Amino acid sequence: MTDSTPAELDRLATAAAAAFAATAASTDAERAAWLRAVATELDAHAHELVAIADGETALGETRLRGEVARTTGQLRLFADVVEEGSYLEAVIDHAVPDAAPPRPDLRRMLRPVGPVAVFAASNFPFAFSVAGGDTASALAVGCPVIVKAHPGHPELSRRVASLVSQALAGAGAPDGVFALVEGREAGVALIEHPAIAAGSFTGSVAGGRALADRAAARPSPIPFFGELGSINPVVVTEAADAARGAALAQGLAGSFQLGAGQFCTKPGIVFVPDGSALESALPAHVGSAPHRLLTDAIDRGFRAGLAHLAAVPGAEVVAGRAADDGIPQPLVYAVDLDTFATHLETLSAEVFGPVTLLVRYGSAADLPAVLARLEGSLTATIHAEDADDVTPVLDVLAARAGRVLFAGWPTGVAVTWSQHHGGPWPSTTSQHTSVGATAARRFQRPIAYQDAPERVLPAALREGNPLSIPRRVDGALRLP
Amino acid sequence: MTDSTPAELDRLATAAAAAFAATAASTDAERAAWLRAVATELDAHAHELVAIADGETALGETRLRGEVARTTGQLRLFADVVEEGSYLEAVIDHAVPDAAPPRPDLRRMLRPVGPVAVFAASNFPFAFSVAGGDTASALAVGCPVIVKAHPGHPELSRRVASLVSQALAGAGAPDGVFALVEGREAGVALIEHPAIAAGSFTGSVAGGRALADRAAARPSPIPFFGELGSINPVVVTEAADAARGAALAQGLAGSFQLGAGQFCTKPGIVFVPDGSALESALPAHVGSAPHRLLTDAIDRGFRAGLAHLAAVPGAEVVAGRAADDGIPQPLVYAVDLDTFATHLETLSAEVFGPVTLLVRYGSAADLPAVLARLEGSLTATIHAEDADDVTPVLDVLAARAGRVLFAGWPTGVAVTWSQHHGGPWPSTTSQHTSVGATAARRFQRPIAYQDAPERVLPAALREGNPLSIPRRVDGALRLP
Repeated sequence: MTDSTPAELDRLATAAAAAFAATAASTDAERAAWLRAVATELDAHAHELVAIADGETALGETRLRGEVARTTGQLRLFADVVEEGSYLEAVIDHAVPDAAPPRPDLRRMLRPVGPVAVFAASNFPFAFSVAGGDTASALAVGCPVIVKAHPGHPELSRRVASLVSQALAGAGAPDGVFALVEGREAGVALIEHPAIAAGSFTGSVAGGRALADRAAARPSPIPFFGELGSINPVVVTEAADAARGAALAQGLAGSFQLGAGQFCTKPGIVFVPDGSALESALPAHVGSAPHRLLTDAIDRGFRAGLAHLAAVPGAEVVAGRAADDGIPQPLVYAVDLDTFATHLETLSAEVFGPVTLLVRYGSAADLPAVLARLEGSLTATIHAEDADDVTPVLDVLAARAGRVLFAGWPTGVAVTWSQHHGGPWPSTTSQHTSVGATAARRFQRPIAYQDAPERVLPAALREGNPLSIPRRVDGALRLP
Repeated sequence: MTDSTPAELDRLATAAAAAFAATAASTDAERAAWLRAVATELDAHAHELVAIADGETALGETRLRGEVARTTGQLRLFADVVEEGSYLEAVIDHAVPDAAPPRPDLRRMLRPVGPVAVFAASNFPFAFSVAGGDTASALAVGCPVIVKAHPGHPELSRRVASLVSQALAGAGAPDGVFALVEGREAGVALIEHPAIAAGSFTGSVAGGRALADRAAARPSPIPFFGELGSINPVVVTEAADAARGAALAQGLAGSFQLGAGQFCTKPGIVFVPDGSALESALPAHVGSAPHRLLTDAIDRGFRAGLAHLAAVPGAEVVAGRAADDGIPQPLVYAVDLDTFATHLETLSAEVFGPVTLLVRYGSAADLPAVLARLEGSLTATIHAEDADDVTPVLDVLAARAGRVLFAGWPTGVAVTWSQHHGGPWPSTTSQHTSVGATAARRFQRPIAYQDAPERVLPAALREGNPLSIPRRVDGALRLP
């Protein structure tokens, strides 16, 4: 029994609230140093961490080693973001005494919201877990973090938490700035604790919705940033299939089987022309699953999802083998567009694991009306040739996705200034991203200072721009 | 009976969804022209509108004429914001094929979320009503708007809506881009309608919470931006009172009586030193209420609030007269700090109307612990002298307010790039502002284009920066 007790949770949340005074007063340079210290510590222990993670997740050393690098790169990106200073959104309007009515001196910036509850995911035991993007972005802006560990990798969670705490302490971060809790009850108590100012989550629709509802129902509601489920539709045009159907088959096969299909960005539905080269070439690239699924619950969900697909009249397996020796095998189903339209709700439900669905269309003109019935996704992908008019498909997909790809496959999520990992419900619960530089804004709130004397202003808003950051002054954006 | 029927609501929401395709495709210049056309139309009819408004609200011609100017100025500010282009938050990261893993070309911007439901307020029949800040900021970014009229000024709402519709049509905006609905049931149906993508609200805590709960409980939850209640604490230091207590009394009296105390930014609690010059000077500036309250419900709420204040042992009236000839009269109550701390919940509840509460303190050192028990507010004000150490009070107030003032009074809310009108719960339901340039962001969501060919990219993200807007390129912010 390792579940955090209510008393322990309360103690940690209270400590986080106490730490907030110090983190809110810390400088950008200090917090950048905290993040880089955590990155250095994790990199130094990568070998040990990968071994623990592989024992608990079976994801394999290569994938896990890459994920550690991604995670520490992410911590360093947020250090850069903080030092660059635009994230503060400093805006200064000097007084205009002659205006009617007279305008005061008014200066706005973003400040940290307070302690953040981070609910870790199972499928990225590093990048979306204890020291993942939510933790990095919250710490970056000055919010203490309490992580609810995912039960799929408890030993790894504890070891990472221990290294994070050690690195933060060594870099001078205040006591209470970071903690880990375990257990379902502790997670619920966490999102409902008065000291918590915001929540973030990566996981299932059911789990995310339950926590979102609790966050909204608190006596004092708090923002909740959940990344839930996503089907990630792909459209392949006739011309693209004719030009490179075989290569697309190889790419698709790699993407939907990656990590045994346990990516929230897995391409779940692929619209292909009737008789596509892609479909013909696909079986050669659908192999054996490399490993078991992450948890028993995911395994059960995968089998249930396959059963739902198999029960749809006209659905057929076109690649992979139904054989099952305990490790679920990759499968590709196919239906025609009419069948898909008829059974859209069943066929567009996310199945977490190594399966994807081809939907064969006769005329591309029939696609937009069907695509318009899909729920929101994190991504949508269009494989087309230069001569294709993709506008009708793009318009409907861009309205339903947070990222639209025109090459490659959605499973890769670059951690950059420009990334957006989010989308309309149910892919996320808000308009914000959980990957990339602007993820930090989730944990900030604006504050405006009116007619404040220079001595009380935060450095970001002082007249001489002592932090040398981009600011908007009297309506004009200015670089330092 | 003027309530919108369910069929009418459904027709309008469906029309808004249809209009969204056109508004999302419109250019910044086109939408700026729509906003300016609305401003011109309202200005041209200001005389007529003010007369209707005064008949329905009794707020008086001077105040209402100023509010029309504020409202049309606000529409024009959002036209400027759209043309300046930073609101799109364009970020471009070029491909880095040599990176491990290789980085794709990734370009992010903000896009409109979809049709917005705007719930109008009673206390600003222009600036926070049919053509107010929520409507202006939603239209600015390309979202159709359906306004739920406030029953406190129905004729004005209809006339303004008619002028807005006329101006938008004249400026070439699509059919369905704007509509007005009336009635409580229509409002509930509106926030629950599947075509609505976001809601915004200005009003009471009870009303806002009810709508926020419905927005969160939808099968497909939507963001809801509510501005609810606020007590707006003020702290006057001993030195400030000694230096200018009489002037502060005059300022406070003007602020809490403005519009008969019906501002969400009314200073509701004023911490003053024992035996303050402010308190001595105050009675001379507390006069007769200029007019009745906005609605019967507000009148009832005001009387109930006064009864709660009067029932607190030790609470005394120090300015104003309790006489009441149907028009509630301005009143100032006072208590000592211990009494306030003992009855904090009762004494810090917002009373909408012309009343404020002085809290007399012996030692400023006792203030932070009491201030820390206040709920979130839109504003907090500190009147201090240069030699005062305001840090302890500022720290606790800045954590509980969206705007902190060091001169003047909070009732004035400048409409500028730097303004923030929002604050911790219950003053608002989110981290966003409902006044100022960044209010537009409430109605936008990010989208990232990966490896998109130039021909399908929105103009904001094309290589040559055809819109000449500020963008972040490969990590560096660049001005056009």
